[in-house]
Amino acid sequence: MPEYRLHHMTWPQVRDALEYARVAIVPIGATEQHGPALKAGIDYRIAEALAEQTVAAADGLALMAPPIPVGFSPHHMDFPGTLTARITTLCAILEDYLASLNRHGLRRFVLMNGHGGNLAFLPGWMAEYRERTGDTVAVVHWSMMGRDVVVDAANSEVYGHACEVETGLAKHLVPDVVLEEELGGPAPLLASESALYRGHAIPERNVGAFTPRSLAEFSSNGALGDPATYDSDKGRELFEKVRDRSVELIRHMAEAPTADRTARKKAEQISAAWGTRT
Amino acid sequence: MPEYRLHHMTWPQVRDALEYARVAIVPIGATEQHGPALKAGIDYRIAEALAEQTVAAADGLALMAPPIPVGFSPHHMDFPGTLTARITTLCAILEDYLASLNRHGLRRFVLMNGHGGNLAFLPGWMAEYRERTGDTVAVVHWSMMGRDVVVDAANSEVYGHACEVETGLAKHLVPDVVLEEELGGPAPLLASESALYRGHAIPERNVGAFTPRSLAEFSSNGALGDPATYDSDKGRELFEKVRDRSVELIRHMAEAPTADRTARKKAEQISAAWGTRT
Amino acid sequence: MPEYRLHHMTWPQVRDALEYARVAIVPIGATEQHGPALKAGIDYRIAEALAEQTVAAADGLALMAPPIPVGFSPHHMDFPGTLTARITTLCAILEDYLASLNRHGLRRFVLMNGHGGNLAFLPGWMAEYRERTGDTVAVVHWSMMGRDVVVDAANSEVYGHACEVETGLAKHLVPDVVLEEELGGPAPLLASESALYRGHAIPERNVGAFTPRSLAEFSSNGALGDPATYDSDKGRELFEKVRDRSVELIRHMAEAPTADRTARKKAEQISAAWGTRT
Amino acid sequence: MPEYRLHHMTWPQVRDALEYARVAIVPIGATEQHGPALKAGIDYRIAEALAEQTVAAADGLALMAPPIPVGFSPHHMDFPGTLTARITTLCAILEDYLASLNRHGLRRFVLMNGHGGNLAFLPGWMAEYRERTGDTVAVVHWSMMGRDVVVDAANSEVYGHACEVETGLAKHLVPDVVLEEELGGPAPLLASESALYRGHAIPERNVGAFTPRSLAEFSSNGALGDPATYDSDKGRELFEKVRDRSVELIRHMAEAPTADRTARKKAEQISAAWGTRT
Amino acid sequence: MPEYRLHHMTWPQVRDALEYARVAIVPIGATEQHGPALKAGIDYRIAEALAEQTVAAADGLALMAPPIPVGFSPHHMDFPGTLTARITTLCAILEDYLASLNRHGLRRFVLMNGHGGNLAFLPGWMAEYRERTGDTVAVVHWSMMGRDVVVDAANSEVYGHACEVETGLAKHLVPDVVLEEELGGPAPLLASESALYRGHAIPERNVGAFTPRSLAEFSSNGALGDPATYDSDKGRELFEKVRDRSVELIRHMAEAPTADRTARKKAEQISAAWGTRT
Amino acid sequence: MPEYRLHHMTWPQVRDALEYARVAIVPIGATEQHGPALKAGIDYRIAEALAEQTVAAADGLALMAPPIPVGFSPHHMDFPGTLTARITTLCAILEDYLASLNRHGLRRFVLMNGHGGNLAFLPGWMAEYRERTGDTVAVVHWSMMGRDVVVDAANSEVYGHACEVETGLAKHLVPDVVLEEELGGPAPLLASESALYRGHAIPERNVGAFTPRSLAEFSSNGALGDPATYDSDKGRELFEKVRDRSVELIRHMAEAPTADRTARKKAEQISAAWGTRT
Repeated sequence: MPEYRLHHMTWPQVRDALEYARVAIVPIGATEQHGPALKAGIDYRIAEALAEQTVAAADGLALMAPPIPVGFSPHHMDFPGTLTARITTLCAILEDYLASLNRHGLRRFVLMNGHGGNLAFLPGWMAEYRERTGDTVAVVHWSMMGRDVVVDAANSEVYGHACEVETGLAKHLVPDVVLEEELGGPAPLLASESALYRGHAIPERNVGAFTPRSLAEFSSNGALGDPATYDSDKGRELFEKVRDRSVELIRHMAEAPTADRTARKKAEQISAAWGTRT
Repeated sequence: MPEYRLHHMTWPQVRDALEYARVAIVPIGATEQHGPALKAGIDYRIAEALAEQTVAAADGLALMAPPIPVGFSPHHMDFPGTLTARITTLCAILEDYLASLNRHGLRRFVLMNGHGGNLAFLPGWMAEYRERTGDTVAVVHWSMMGRDVVVDAANSEVYGHACEVETGLAKHLVPDVVLEEELGGPAPLLASESALYRGHAIPERNVGAFTPRSLAEFSSNGALGDPATYDSDKGRELFEKVRDRSVELIRHMAEAPTADRTARKKAEQISAAWGTRT
Repeated sequence: MPEYRLHHMTWPQVRDALEYARVAIVPIGATEQHGPALKAGIDYRIAEALAEQTVAAADGLALMAPPIPVGFSPHHMDFPGTLTARITTLCAILEDYLASLNRHGLRRFVLMNGHGGNLAFLPGWMAEYRERTGDTVAVVHWSMMGRDVVVDAANSEVYGHACEVETGLAKHLVPDVVLEEELGGPAPLLASESALYRGHAIPERNVGAFTPRSLAEFSSNGALGDPATYDSDKGRELFEKVRDRSVELIRHMAEAPTADRTARKKAEQISAAWGTRT
Repeated sequence: MPEYRLHHMTWPQVRDALEYARVAIVPIGATEQHGPALKAGIDYRIAEALAEQTVAAADGLALMAPPIPVGFSPHHMDFPGTLTARITTLCAILEDYLASLNRHGLRRFVLMNGHGGNLAFLPGWMAEYRERTGDTVAVVHWSMMGRDVVVDAANSEVYGHACEVETGLAKHLVPDVVLEEELGGPAPLLASESALYRGHAIPERNVGAFTPRSLAEFSSNGALGDPATYDSDKGRELFEKVRDRSVELIRHMAEAPTADRTARKKAEQISAAWGTRT
Repeated sequence: MPEYRLHHMTWPQVRDALEYARVAIVPIGATEQHGPALKAGIDYRIAEALAEQTVAAADGLALMAPPIPVGFSPHHMDFPGTLTARITTLCAILEDYLASLNRHGLRRFVLMNGHGGNLAFLPGWMAEYRERTGDTVAVVHWSMMGRDVVVDAANSEVYGHACEVETGLAKHLVPDVVLEEELGGPAPLLASESALYRGHAIPERNVGAFTPRSLAEFSSNGALGDPATYDSDKGRELFEKVRDRSVELIRHMAEAPTADRTARKKAEQISAAWGTRT
Repeated sequence: MPEYRLHHMTWPQVRDALEYARVAIVPIGATEQHGPALKAGIDYRIAEALAEQTVAAADGLALMAPPIPVGFSPHHMDFPGTLTARITTLCAILEDYLASLNRHGLRRFVLMNGHGGNLAFLPGWMAEYRERTGDTVAVVHWSMMGRDVVVDAANSEVYGHACEVETGLAKHLVPDVVLEEELGGPAPLLASESALYRGHAIPERNVGAFTPRSLAEFSSNGALGDPATYDSDKGRELFEKVRDRSVELIRHMAEAPTADRTARKKAEQISAAWGTRT
């Protein structure tokens, strides 16, 4: 079976693969508490596994870099063992990954992101990176890429971090991170705050104002939802949807012009269309 | 009528107001193209007006700083007149505003944000600011704070930037920014991209992957939706909801302990609850 | 009447104006205490008004950006309500303004500065900006651009910040910032320090050493001079001189080659002249 | 068997382990070409394996963080697949790892470094980190920690990167990174440069001046020495020496006062001893 | 004769001197072209000599650090041999000097500045340093500290950089930097620019706008004024005035409280005085 | 005698010298305690003297910049009078020196380094500088460039900082820095630490782990070895070897292509050689 993971290849192998490959996948996650039953590395482990499965299914169009095992997790630091990196650090490491890959000729990047918290800064950084380099960059998070399955797999009113959906996905992809014997009842939510305060929730529920909070203000065991009710079939379905759609994204990106050429062409069209107006 | 805008006060007036005030509101927006009928300053003008109305209704609990007239707008730079600032710049200016206000004794901050694009970096910065200082910071954007009215006021399938909802709100708050004679038909959308590519849309529609794009790739006149179909009654209703809920938020924040004390207390509770478990 | 303020224009209007305009004016000021009778926003309000009047008189050669409402004011932080920004922040925001304007084709910039304290870093930053970009940048402060009128309008031995000259100018340009009823007698100066210590004074009096000090070490009410003795005729004269000379400056800049081309030509001349000497 | 790897633990497990643990081990390596027979991830794989074996033998005194898979490798960028990070990036990520671990109560750190190139900046960063925090930090590289075995295991005159010593160590610790079938004869060295130019060599041979060079200037296949002559017994011996000495180091560090207290005490002694001298 | 220059002392000598010394002098200059007759090192050489003479006359109240030989000289880069440093670099090196000296117990600093161009950023940096540390910092430049003599010693209408005043001072303090045989007639000024453009001139003549320019736009040989007409008696008088006044400044600073205590006391006075007003 | 020191030249002299010169030498040292008998400036004084002698012997191939008198010395801060600069500061000042010299046409640089502590960051910075600019940069330290003589001249088991070798070299090059009357017996070493802890030693003895330490933890008078046993003949021999080899290095560099061209050519060779392999 061909190898598409850079860290598992020699340089002559990479050189040959680069003749066909057009897209690089960079897994990024976190090392962050996920309640009493999930291991702290779950987010980067899921990201790594999703990336591995995606490149394996992409017919050589994509290569994969080694996973970045730490993410943006200040809101989990009240729980022992969590690591967090500053936003500037994470942007710098991504910048260096992409610049290195660019030097080998790749100009299209997919960040396979396993940690929702990284979305607090990725969109901004990606927009600046695109402007500066003209390279194309997209981010995939399974909760967005497979949102239809996520909604279907959720059993709790409040879910998200370390909930039954994430547990089910992990059980399928990286089963060793789930400690079955520690899966108890629903996560014990603390007395709720003003309805106008919302934070660390899944985007679509972000009605009201946003204010950053520690998970310790929400949940006394660090989890949300009811992890014990996970469904491994849903986990597999979620994985398959995310993998297949990611492959579809890669095919689309590989054929589309890079960001610099796209923007330039569109701007010219508009300029032409409006040129005679005033 | 009492004055709560710092830039319109003398220092003895500020000194006296600080005996009661607990919250500072910082308006932030953008100077960015909004299609052929809306002036580029619309986002910071709306933010400023919302902040003025909010402090006027907050019974002295809040003071207001002068508006920051530029925001994160790289995706609009293909259209003449747009200004954009780097994320590090915007974080620095916010940092300096809040540090200055903190030195005068204020430790609770509401960012009254008039530009959706600023949400690409604000959540991350706010979380870091809170960790570093222990001060409390929240962000209000009218599209989130008044989301029920927004959904009701939208007439188009694809709406958001410079659409009928924003036009209606502007018509009520800062009517001079709307050039009625330039309001034509619906914004001319360009041929759509892969459904897996999504960008610059309102959060809840962000299904699929996210990739930054220029507005020029979406819309040939720089707007979305159908601005001419705006409803000024909806605009007034939206304004009132946002103002009233922002005042409610301010009251809540003024009474709540600052972030440092909250987090510490919660962490202690959890530590106690779990202390005997293993 | 034509519009030359970017924040009050649509993008097609800016596009058309850019066919003739060659210079951009960026107002920068401060939000900083000015004693008991002047509002904190006076410096950026004056800068904004001067910029507006200047572009209005420049026959389309210049466009104006929205004012930057905060400046370098650490020496005023002992008085409530003052905001201050770090030098790196202010340089970054100016950098972003100018880079944005450059992208729309403008390469000549006038900083209309309403706050003397900003001169503590602007000359250095401007020199570096010019080297890096080859664009031309000039700074105007009314106390320098209209220095002849300033000397004439001063009634006090020690004047400068919030004195009768600034009050007179404000009374003409932005009269709402002057609280007439709070204009008392001369500012109460504190016991003077060693004659070798000088700081925060107008440049030409800067004999001796320079050491930064808080205004609170000079003046117990935050002002200098005798604001109540202002003369509004002098204020109007000062304004007119600054406006007319700024228009003259703009005409000169619009015709002169940008910095990169000027320096290169001069260097070649010198090289030629000295080429045979040694 | 007890678990000491943070990424494979839940937060209650980490909390319990922290009652005894005093030292954290952070593996850092590289993703960098190692000639035609070794996979690019070899350096971080070796670092990870050494760290795992060391914590497993340290009786609970040490915990391990997930490996940092990229290092300082500009001199390998001429070969496809190599990733490199800027020095500031690597310092930032280490800073964030250590600050996170410190927040959980750990103040003694061992960097288990698998890539010699990282020693071009680690000593400087470590000295600054110690000054700033008072925490203790040490770095282990197998070529130094087991130098006696290294000298013994080397068969070539010029060895180092990807040579028989590294191959033998990898064969024992992470055998999948060695492609036996690609192990040919000695690495083809290019015509040598001036004897006064030395770079990228093992420290003790660094006689003369130092100048950075690309590996491509030394070796046409990216390796040094004669990898095919590796001896797996030497590899095992090297591993055991490094592991055992690292455990010894951990025991020493766990008992010694942290850097801040050590330096202070010594400085006082000297001050006392010399107080009466002059 | 006692030694007060740190770089010429052993640590026990410094330790003893610190029992009495209260002020540190840091010479800063430039390595920058000064026309055909003055050596490029003149500015830091003058600063060093002035500092040496000042500490020698200060009865042990002051110690001197080694000179910083490079300054802010972008406007001289068109002439061969000039070195220039970025503003951030110069601030960093000053920051490190002062932080080091502070660690040995010194909290009062005099920057003995030999290069007018450094005044383009020093006032701003000094104000920020004072705010951040509470330490006192002053800057001396001979053209300000001895301005009465400078005005008297100038023979040319346009003078400043490398003119007869500077030449006379150098001839007295560091005579080897003057190449007598290269002193020709007045510096050949180029055709003047608009009177509204002013730059790189002595502060008091800075009427009009300020815009950075290369010296090559002013003077075809890199000097101003008429260096050959220097008067060494004036040079000696200028030196003596600057030295004596600098010693006076040092005595004043040594007795005055540091910046943190001064500002705090004044702020309290004002607060008390105004407390009952509104 | 021709002059090759930029700070002692006028710009026309530099212009003429640049017609032949190809290499610039930048002396960098430290101001750092060296025990009771050596002055703190010794490291930059030695670097300056070595650079002066080297350019004087290089037949016009090299020019010399003024010495940087401060270095990386955090480990000496426990002793009065030591100055230290952050790594970022030192990299910035070097960057500015080299960029300035590059602008005058020089692209080959030798750092004449007098302080071993600077090697904790120089290799990393040099590699990044080379990558970014394509310019060639080498570093010379006498302990490496003349290592054969150093080993021969050492009388003590533990030597290095301020030992008999450095004293002998200083005695020959800059004799005023040695206070003969303070040269006592061997430096009083403190009780040794674990053999696995090594720091601040000469590279070849760096067996074990590396951990930064204060000199105050090693030696109670700040020196190592037995300075009183220095041999001035060895000092002269060491100087001559370093000078002659540095001249040889300069000749080699002057003829060799710059880094950008070298790397490119080698990469092409390799690419060609391996092109048909897989």
